[in-house]
Amino acid sequence: MVKSRCDLSRVHGLIETGPVVLLTTSRAGRPNAMPMSWHTMLDFEPPLVGCVVSDRNYSFAALKSARECVLNIPTAKLARQVVGCGNTTGAKIDKFAAFHLTARPASLVRAPLIDECYASLECRVADTRLVRKYGLFVLEILRAWVDPAAKNPRTLHHRGWGRFMVAGQTIALPSAMR
Amino acid sequence: MVKSRCDLSRVHGLIETGPVVLLTTSRAGRPNAMPMSWHTMLDFEPPLVGCVVSDRNYSFAALKSARECVLNIPTAKLARQVVGCGNTTGAKIDKFAAFHLTARPASLVRAPLIDECYASLECRVADTRLVRKYGLFVLEILRAWVDPAAKNPRTLHHRGWGRFMVAGQTIALPSAMR
Repeated sequence: MVKSRCDLSRVHGLIETGPVVLLTTSRAGRPNAMPMSWHTMLDFEPPLVGCVVSDRNYSFAALKSARECVLNIPTAKLARQVVGCGNTTGAKIDKFAAFHLTARPASLVRAPLIDECYASLECRVADTRLVRKYGLFVLEILRAWVDPAAKNPRTLHHRGWGRFMVAGQTIALPSAMR
Repeated sequence: MVKSRCDLSRVHGLIETGPVVLLTTSRAGRPNAMPMSWHTMLDFEPPLVGCVVSDRNYSFAALKSARECVLNIPTAKLARQVVGCGNTTGAKIDKFAAFHLTARPASLVRAPLIDECYASLECRVADTRLVRKYGLFVLEILRAWVDPAAKNPRTLHHRGWGRFMVAGQTIALPSAMR
């Protein structure tokens, strides 16, 4: 999927709708991907995201040591792969091979972009002080890639226990809210 | 709107889809409401939510001093009121009167429930140590109220600049993810 660089000042709109993301990491050259729904924007510029990764997740050690990751945003077409990545562990399988996901090199970090996702945000870990108490990593988005054709992406929003709400119509109202 | 108590173990499913919430506070007996999209679950039990409230918001002082609030989740029917609350400040107007919102007493906190919202989560501020650096308040959800008829609520998800994605269909897949 061909993606274009997205201005970092606009990237908050990709995250604050609350989509499931696939967090990719790289550990000893092996890529891994885990679905994650517990995230929030923390600042506009530079764009900061807080995300919760439990130390029970295989990705935890890679994120903590490499201090880099990519947040990839899938659409509903990838729902089975998202659930597959959530039901398995990178400790035992190569999720990219198992779920036919394509790892593409990122520009600034070693963690890969997932080609099939409509948006990919290259991140560095900016603050780990909240990890012990809340599992909360503060990420700075360094570069953002978006499919320019995805005007109203049908993102997935986890309701718990494998139920996902799929993004519906977009409405616009006169608003001063960024 | 008649709401029932929702088991706290299930409340994460209301938040992790990423809906716009109306955060209500009470200050010297005057209720206020502000829309907020920057929030994330931080733990299941007790349910903790991290939410970003800027010190430029009128609600900031009330939240910091009273250490209580309610997270009310509106559906698309309330889109105009949500934007109205975002375009105005409680320093100048009574938003409940201006936008025809009904304040109902909560059971455990002084901040009000918004009757028109399909879910309301009574919260206490559990941790303010991240407020200075990130504007991040850690809230513990003490009690949750949900309209039992709202099976697939058409929640609002902010895309920025007054554009909202409205929740679409729900799909279910076999998943081990809570």
